[in-house]
Amino acid sequence: MTGLGGAHAAFREWMPAMQALTEEALDRFLPPSSAVPAALHTAMRYAAMDGGKRVRPLLVFAAGALFDADRDSLMRAAAAVEMIHAYSLVHDDLPCMDNDSVRRGKPTLHVKYDEATAMLVGDALQAQAFGILAEGESDPLCRLELVQLLARASGSTGMCGGQAIDLASVGLTLSLTELEQMHRLKTGALLTASVLLGARCGKALSGAERAGLQAYAAAIGLAFQVVDDVLDATADSATLGKTAGKDAVANKPTYVTILGLEESRRLAQQLRSDAEKAIAPFGDKAQRLRDIAELIVQRKA
Amino acid sequence: MTGLGGAHAAFREWMPAMQALTEEALDRFLPPSSAVPAALHTAMRYAAMDGGKRVRPLLVFAAGALFDADRDSLMRAAAAVEMIHAYSLVHDDLPCMDNDSVRRGKPTLHVKYDEATAMLVGDALQAQAFGILAEGESDPLCRLELVQLLARASGSTGMCGGQAIDLASVGLTLSLTELEQMHRLKTGALLTASVLLGARCGKALSGAERAGLQAYAAAIGLAFQVVDDVLDATADSATLGKTAGKDAVANKPTYVTILGLEESRRLAQQLRSDAEKAIAPFGDKAQRLRDIAELIVQRKA
Repeated sequence: MTGLGGAHAAFREWMPAMQALTEEALDRFLPPSSAVPAALHTAMRYAAMDGGKRVRPLLVFAAGALFDADRDSLMRAAAAVEMIHAYSLVHDDLPCMDNDSVRRGKPTLHVKYDEATAMLVGDALQAQAFGILAEGESDPLCRLELVQLLARASGSTGMCGGQAIDLASVGLTLSLTELEQMHRLKTGALLTASVLLGARCGKALSGAERAGLQAYAAAIGLAFQVVDDVLDATADSATLGKTAGKDAVANKPTYVTILGLEESRRLAQQLRSDAEKAIAPFGDKAQRLRDIAELIVQRKA
Repeated sequence: MTGLGGAHAAFREWMPAMQALTEEALDRFLPPSSAVPAALHTAMRYAAMDGGKRVRPLLVFAAGALFDADRDSLMRAAAAVEMIHAYSLVHDDLPCMDNDSVRRGKPTLHVKYDEATAMLVGDALQAQAFGILAEGESDPLCRLELVQLLARASGSTGMCGGQAIDLASVGLTLSLTELEQMHRLKTGALLTASVLLGARCGKALSGAERAGLQAYAAAIGLAFQVVDDVLDATADSATLGKTAGKDAVANKPTYVTILGLEESRRLAQQLRSDAEKAIAPFGDKAQRLRDIAELIVQRKA
């Protein structure tokens, strides 16, 4: 992970520690590769483990720190949001969707295995995510709320809904507002859920706490997408670990095509500032969330 | 619904009433077609509503009757298992899986819409199923257990796992034991979950109650598959509402190819008898479960 010039030393230690904890959580909460059917479980691990920046788990852990959430609950939440993210990538990469062959610097799942396996891996990862949230020892009402939050964020009025809007928008001229609505569902909903899940592992949220965290998450969610569009237009595939320039090839509307490069970069900084304001009331305990906002805007891949 | 010659008149009234209640539940627990994104929600309803025998919801309601479960919980459970079933059919019918063009007498979803929509419809139906189980007013521990049961039954060690084994078995010679293991996961796990969800809506199960219901469900699950194989080999597509004879075309191992037609029919009757024995301790309250076992073995489509 690069591009965190201004970050505190503590964050530079915290981030890889939380990424390692995410890996540990995925290893614990995914069935072992040897379990029947071994081929499916091996492929599920290929999809979910050893890759990615783990932005969603980082948000879970950072938001959990606000209210001193316990480690087991956070590990479950981190693994669950990452399983949902991983399943969406596997399905998104299929030929009937984005038809991508490289992801996180590795062959995409349907290239490594086959399309049918990719379909089943995604389906099984989703079921696993809900299962591990419902299990555990934490307060039953908390666990139920986590399942509800994740279901809403990943379903037809969240991530899947955003993907449907994205599909329908190829070749169309979107306004900035329409583009934002699409991204708010497609990527924003799961990022927001990651923040809320982490915080909810600590305690039931007040209306004001929830509103502040949602505003933070909405801002970094859009910033994440703006930076994605900038990187897709400016970086090379080797740096990204996935195919660069594919938005232009697919004739997809992006922040760069609508606003241009410079205005897009300015918007990302503005969104980072909005995010920091939203979590100001949480004081020092929100430092990791501030660090993540900076990471998202400064990242180079 | 045909083929229920010996059933009680009460069951002939109960079944369509429960099928109508399933339709009502799906209508209530699926987002309205008009909700954004409307195209996705319309397609989700196309996949889930107005079709099928609703065997899994019937099992939910019949098992719920054992312990006088409340109607709202049962409607949620019925809708949830049917959404999981519907998503599995939509994904199963895709070209990379079974490549089927007719289902329940209608064009399959990717034929009616497109493959990307079919993928997203399945993904969103799964999320919706877990979401509606986690919501509601019933005891939190009950709701958590329902989510856990459904996650295990539909994931990599349940339905998805069975599909993976099925895919890997095309063209192979399976033993009867291997074929049973595959079906126990592929279709049996969700049928068993339907029974356990319905019963759990009524009360927390004792070990003996759970074991009896699992034995019942395992028997009718295998019976269901044996009859499916017999019908695939003997009925025509118009009667089935889906493509007949596709097992032979796909060179898939079936009960008919391993045991022959007559022995398969005898096995189905034996399994029905096993199912009835397993639920004998529940007495008269299990009559609907008995009726469903008969329905499964006598059905003609």
